[in-house]
Amino acid sequence: MTVDYDSKEYLELVDKYWRAANYLSVGQLFLRDNPLLKKPLEAKDVKVKPIGHWGTIVSQNLIYAELNRVINKYDLNMFYIEGSGHGGQVMVSNSYLDGSYSDIYPNISQDEKGMAKLFKQFSFPGGVASHAAPETPGSIHEGGELGYSLSHGTGAILDNPDVIAAVEIGDGESETGPLAASWFSDKFINPITDGAVLPIINMNGFKISNPTILSRMSDEDLTSYFKGMGWDPYFVEATADTDHAKVEAEFAKTLDHVIEEIKSIQKNARENETPDNVKLPNWPMIIFRSPKGWTGPKKDLDGNPIEGSFRAHQVPIPVAAGSMEHKDLLINWLKSYKPEELFDENGTVKPEIREVAPKGDQRMSVNPITNGGIKPEPLKLPNVRDFEVKFDRGVTQKQDMIEWSNWLEKVAELNPTSFRGFGPDETKSNRLYSLLDDSKRQWMEDIHEPFDEDLSNHGRVIDSQLSEHQAEGWLEGYVLTGRHGFFATYESFGRVVDSMLTQHMKWLRKASEQYWRKQYPSLNFVDTSTVFQQDHNGYTHQDPGMLTHLAEKKPEFIREYLPADANTLLAVGDVAFRTYEKINLIVTSKHPRRQWYTMDEAQNLVKNGLGYIDWASTDQGQEPDVVFAAAGSEPNLEALAAISILNKEFPEMKIRYINVVDLLKLRSPKVDPRGLSDEDFDNLFTTDKPVIFAFHGFEGLIKDIFFDRHNHNLHVHGYRENGDITTPFDMRVLNQLDRFNLAKEAVQDIPAYTIKGGYFIQRMNDTIDKHNAYIRQEGTDLPEVVDWKWEGLKK
Amino acid sequence: MTVDYDSKEYLELVDKYWRAANYLSVGQLFLRDNPLLKKPLEAKDVKVKPIGHWGTIVSQNLIYAELNRVINKYDLNMFYIEGSGHGGQVMVSNSYLDGSYSDIYPNISQDEKGMAKLFKQFSFPGGVASHAAPETPGSIHEGGELGYSLSHGTGAILDNPDVIAAVEIGDGESETGPLAASWFSDKFINPITDGAVLPIINMNGFKISNPTILSRMSDEDLTSYFKGMGWDPYFVEATADTDHAKVEAEFAKTLDHVIEEIKSIQKNARENETPDNVKLPNWPMIIFRSPKGWTGPKKDLDGNPIEGSFRAHQVPIPVAAGSMEHKDLLINWLKSYKPEELFDENGTVKPEIREVAPKGDQRMSVNPITNGGIKPEPLKLPNVRDFEVKFDRGVTQKQDMIEWSNWLEKVAELNPTSFRGFGPDETKSNRLYSLLDDSKRQWMEDIHEPFDEDLSNHGRVIDSQLSEHQAEGWLEGYVLTGRHGFFATYESFGRVVDSMLTQHMKWLRKASEQYWRKQYPSLNFVDTSTVFQQDHNGYTHQDPGMLTHLAEKKPEFIREYLPADANTLLAVGDVAFRTYEKINLIVTSKHPRRQWYTMDEAQNLVKNGLGYIDWASTDQGQEPDVVFAAAGSEPNLEALAAISILNKEFPEMKIRYINVVDLLKLRSPKVDPRGLSDEDFDNLFTTDKPVIFAFHGFEGLIKDIFFDRHNHNLHVHGYRENGDITTPFDMRVLNQLDRFNLAKEAVQDIPAYTIKGGYFIQRMNDTIDKHNAYIRQEGTDLPEVVDWKWEGLKK
Ligand SMILES: Cc1ncc(C[n+]2csc(CCOP(=O)(O)OP(=O)(O)O)c2C)c(N)n1
Ligand SMILES: Cc1ncc(C[n+]2csc(CCOP(=O)(O)OP(=O)(O)O)c2C)c(N)n1
Ligand SMILES: [Mg+2]
Ligand SMILES: [Mg+2]
Repeated sequence: MTVDYDSKEYLELVDKYWRAANYLSVGQLFLRDNPLLKKPLEAKDVKVKPIGHWGTIVSQNLIYAELNRVINKYDLNMFYIEGSGHGGQVMVSNSYLDGSYSDIYPNISQDEKGMAKLFKQFSFPGGVASHAAPETPGSIHEGGELGYSLSHGTGAILDNPDVIAAVEIGDGESETGPLAASWFSDKFINPITDGAVLPIINMNGFKISNPTILSRMSDEDLTSYFKGMGWDPYFVEATADTDHAKVEAEFAKTLDHVIEEIKSIQKNARENETPDNVKLPNWPMIIFRSPKGWTGPKKDLDGNPIEGSFRAHQVPIPVAAGSMEHKDLLINWLKSYKPEELFDENGTVKPEIREVAPKGDQRMSVNPITNGGIKPEPLKLPNVRDFEVKFDRGVTQKQDMIEWSNWLEKVAELNPTSFRGFGPDETKSNRLYSLLDDSKRQWMEDIHEPFDEDLSNHGRVIDSQLSEHQAEGWLEGYVLTGRHGFFATYESFGRVVDSMLTQHMKWLRKASEQYWRKQYPSLNFVDTSTVFQQDHNGYTHQDPGMLTHLAEKKPEFIREYLPADANTLLAVGDVAFRTYEKINLIVTSKHPRRQWYTMDEAQNLVKNGLGYIDWASTDQGQEPDVVFAAAGSEPNLEALAAISILNKEFPEMKIRYINVVDLLKLRSPKVDPRGLSDEDFDNLFTTDKPVIFAFHGFEGLIKDIFFDRHNHNLHVHGYRENGDITTPFDMRVLNQLDRFNLAKEAVQDIPAYTIKGGYFIQRMNDTIDKHNAYIRQEGTDLPEVVDWKWEGLKK
Repeated sequence: MTVDYDSKEYLELVDKYWRAANYLSVGQLFLRDNPLLKKPLEAKDVKVKPIGHWGTIVSQNLIYAELNRVINKYDLNMFYIEGSGHGGQVMVSNSYLDGSYSDIYPNISQDEKGMAKLFKQFSFPGGVASHAAPETPGSIHEGGELGYSLSHGTGAILDNPDVIAAVEIGDGESETGPLAASWFSDKFINPITDGAVLPIINMNGFKISNPTILSRMSDEDLTSYFKGMGWDPYFVEATADTDHAKVEAEFAKTLDHVIEEIKSIQKNARENETPDNVKLPNWPMIIFRSPKGWTGPKKDLDGNPIEGSFRAHQVPIPVAAGSMEHKDLLINWLKSYKPEELFDENGTVKPEIREVAPKGDQRMSVNPITNGGIKPEPLKLPNVRDFEVKFDRGVTQKQDMIEWSNWLEKVAELNPTSFRGFGPDETKSNRLYSLLDDSKRQWMEDIHEPFDEDLSNHGRVIDSQLSEHQAEGWLEGYVLTGRHGFFATYESFGRVVDSMLTQHMKWLRKASEQYWRKQYPSLNFVDTSTVFQQDHNGYTHQDPGMLTHLAEKKPEFIREYLPADANTLLAVGDVAFRTYEKINLIVTSKHPRRQWYTMDEAQNLVKNGLGYIDWASTDQGQEPDVVFAAAGSEPNLEALAAISILNKEFPEMKIRYINVVDLLKLRSPKVDPRGLSDEDFDNLFTTDKPVIFAFHGFEGLIKDIFFDRHNHNLHVHGYRENGDITTPFDMRVLNQLDRFNLAKEAVQDIPAYTIKGGYFIQRMNDTIDKHNAYIRQEGTDLPEVVDWKWEGLKK
């Protein structure tokens, strides 16, 4: 049977399908029973507090219906991203119509009873979100925090050459920074090796209570704006008065054209060009003008317009169980979709309407890309031991990121279509040299060597847009579709995407509660160029607060690693990159630093999260006088230097040193299921000896962690928000995280030393004074600091 | 004396001025002595570790010089925003040339000795930042975190009709989300009542290690992009080979045209239109193409290009005290600017060159707008007592934001040109009704009533762009130029600008260390639509972490207020809005809530930060069995409800209730100079009684605060990252912040009640079960919860 997708008959089915989706969407907003209005509508049929959004629904349902049509017509592999995620009914209604909703949630059956449950559960306690949430089939994007739809769509189609991401974008959303920057995604999509995004602006003219900027721009200005950025915009327009059949046909025609355009760009590139040498095409996009709250109530009780106005945004009429005076408004509205033409007497959608939905995995609601990915595979990892840095302990200097890059490059090689690195113009600055050399940076604009370097039309790294939002959004889209990767960034400016990480964690959490959701590879967030060394920049570039920010999230989904040297970083990568369902924060140095831990030691540290360091302790078999702990590269260095100063001066002092890599393991099991037991914790940290904790981040986090432990004799030296453009060591001095201040702290905290150590305190103070004078004169650190190396301890 | 600013002679002076600025900028990068190379260059003349940025300098210096010229020619009131703030030498060099630098820092004198100091201090420990920092004359913008230059510029010229902000924007910066969205600023600038921004893209083709997206776009595409958004772009282009005189003349001509265009837009509007009815003009802007690292070293030692390449970004040649092999590269580079033509034998810039700089306050480096504002005035505040909400305690319901809005409206009326509210499309949703009704929202695109509401070409609120970055950036620009205002936003999405608040705090801090910097009015950040009631949205909209985020900053600059009702909110506003140099975070409810505190009580709470609430306590004159504390609207409500439940059941239980408004006052003076003394703290919280702390935010912050106090018998009930779309009360139940869980906690924590209270625990659990069943059935909270009201305590 061949179907004529362009026939009037077929378009009439599309219209019915659309009306069915609209009916279901309004029903979800208001009803809890009597879904087909077979009986007169009574208070008990209506929700006590209807909650959700209306204004975005109908235009989206039409977009969805029209996309179904082209999936069928052109046999597409397409999925839907709902930028205006607050129209949660859209994806629910459409997945109910295509049958997938009932497959996944069998109690929501394809009949009147199921429909009643569908309606009641929406935006209801114990029910489903009012947004396109993890429980919504087909969604990889909630859109709660607006702005990331196009970045997510782009991330999803990278290395998925057969997929088209249809990205619905709110005209309000288009005003956000992240969205405005994400139009430049087109400069990175390779038409041969990647799929395509099809942005569709849902230009309904309004946001919550304002008109939108874009909608008040002329078609000419809009064309100019988008053409300038390399897009080819097509317009479809509906007003409240436009005949529906006309819009439907026009939309179908436009969409046909646009799909053919995408196919022809791809065909041409794939037949005539090579991945490394391909022309930057102008991708098509659609601007769909329609009235906000289209087909809904026209005017409110005061006579103000609802349809075509901001007033359509949420629940547009005051009908609820407790206020049924205006129930006719609701009844007429529902009936305007002619449900009798759409559902049979059982309440099942009529088969010919259902036919508009594609079949099987081609339904956007169950496209595998939206549930774990098309062909998800675990990451293949090279043996990390082959990359071990051999060293003379505490003497050899290496740059951790350079060492790590060798391993990353191999990871990229072993996973040529399922591993990517992202960044905001910083991959080189972050020293991932070998990854860049071999894997190149993907970028479709012209390449002008030798002025440019390490660029290619096809590469494993994307970092040529200066946007943390884009790097994070692309990576999210990439891992949410089953692939692997990392985002490496300056520690301070990682904070630009604080809230994106929050949203991602929330998604992971709710998704993990869905029995049918497959697992996501972890999102690896690499903070480097850290607070404690900022050669070319100063105070603005100093902020380690991501550690606190993520520590506040649900513990199950967060890991925070602070490797102190290259082997530990390698060992962290080897563990973190294998995980699923996590945000792995890795805080690491990029500068030359002494090396400390063999691969064996490093792997144990990572496995256990932390460890007693035998060679840096002098309390073997005895109670320690003091416990030093450190988390982070410079804290580890300074703690060890402090220990060696103390050991030289007070060889009898019993010192214990603990290196902490997996920070959140320190938390009490009351707070974090992975936390060390109190027994283990007390064994390591004692219940009462002074603990001097050298910490990379803000101190409150460590105090919070220790609050739930027995030992409150804690002295944290972390980042105290003191900074400047200054020498690396001076940053530690400014924050009293340096060896001299740490050594002082020990003498002050161990009662037996407090008084007899007076001279020592003075000596440390003098050294700090000397440091201050020297750097102001020379601009570099004292030779005794720069050249300091580990010489072992007297025991 | 009339000067012919268009003459070849004058342009030659501009050229010399430019060369002088370039010379000074290179000198700052490398030298610590021998600034005019009068003696052969030796290692001791060169910095040990030259640090800073080169690639952005020369194009900026030309922009600056050309701006000087038009200031003179057209008698302008103009200042400079350096988007690429990392070119710190630019503003320093120019302020040194115009004499202001030596006025402010007399030890940096206008002679060879001063120049040596100028050079040495740059990007040097104990010296000045490598960025356009608070210590840099003329700067209101550091640009450390890129993306906010145009938002800042726009905020600065609102209500400053005579001012033009010349905003230099990096082509890399243009790729960020915030910058890309900030082009829409033009839709909000009123040509009659506001000044103008003149964006100048410093299109040097590269960023750190990549080409830029915009620079590889054709002039045609760029024109299209900007025209689409309503700008009128003008191009000036220089290649490495272009004759300098030609570029200088072309730039001058273009700038003349652009300035005349701005003037004519303003003149036309001011003469022919009214503020409320004015056409949206197309503002001009400039795109200046030039080679990155222009006039600098051509090739590196391997023969790779530096000029015109990303390689010019930082320090382009390896010359330093310790590596003088290639010193000729530096010498030739410096000499290429012909210093002998620029400085006299004392090292003073020649007078005719100095003449290119404007005089007095017209110098961009000392324009008053950049130091506290043109005519800064304290905010006039209406008497807050006139707005007191009268109530029946714990019975009357009001919406705090609606009440507050009445006061805000009056503030706007009293300060018609120095007070503004900003927001991302949420002012109405946030219930600031009377402010909107009377003060309107400023917006220059068409207004279509009755589809639109509360819009006007001229208004005190700007919230018609859905962008937290813009709202925050505009407000920052507004307060950094001496005016007052607030940003009201959904609590969760306030986090979108986490890092902007960090940067603002850093600016305030460093500015406060400058003797010559005037004070800035505080930045008021209002979080509403909070985690504990999200009617139309769910889990994504739930995040109170701003409290922790800001608490990590330097205490001197941060206040966190959690008013529990309308009078307290009014009292907070009355105090916070008078302050300077702070970020005031105000977390407040917008929903109907019981009212608790008289204005007298509220003002005392705000004054003291917290208070013992006599009418809610039963321990008068006795040791309490338990201390309840609450910070926030729902925590206060639930704590009081818990107290009343306990009091009914156990009238003999001695309960103390403390309401906390100014959260950070709880911190130890060791951490925060404003913190309560241990004595005061212990008096309130005791040293050992159970403290049940109902808190609006994440619990770690309270544990961190209590860590430094004696009483560690603490039981925090805060946001536990549990959320959903659900009823308001259920959000509290999910996080165990509800009355029933709090009452349980008390019985569990007071030893005398733990065993005998078994039945009570069961009763509370049963009630919670009942709640759970009821909301899943009805979709609203139990009547006994909704209707609960305060009935006083049995004592
Ligand atoms: C970053 C962010 N800021 C603010 C909001 C609050 N908000 C929810 S919907 C909305 C308006 C969206 O308008 P538009 O994108 O046009 O979607 P429509 O409902 O019109 O389809 C706003 C501002 C949000 N969700 N995210
Ligand atoms: C938000 C943010 N991300 C990253 C950086 C790191 N960074 C500093 S300079 C720079 C490149 C800037 O390029 P451009 O704006 O073109 O300035 P130019 O130096 O070329 O004038 C980058 C990415 C930053 N400062 N801010
Ligand atoms: Mg819209
Ligand atoms: Mg640039």
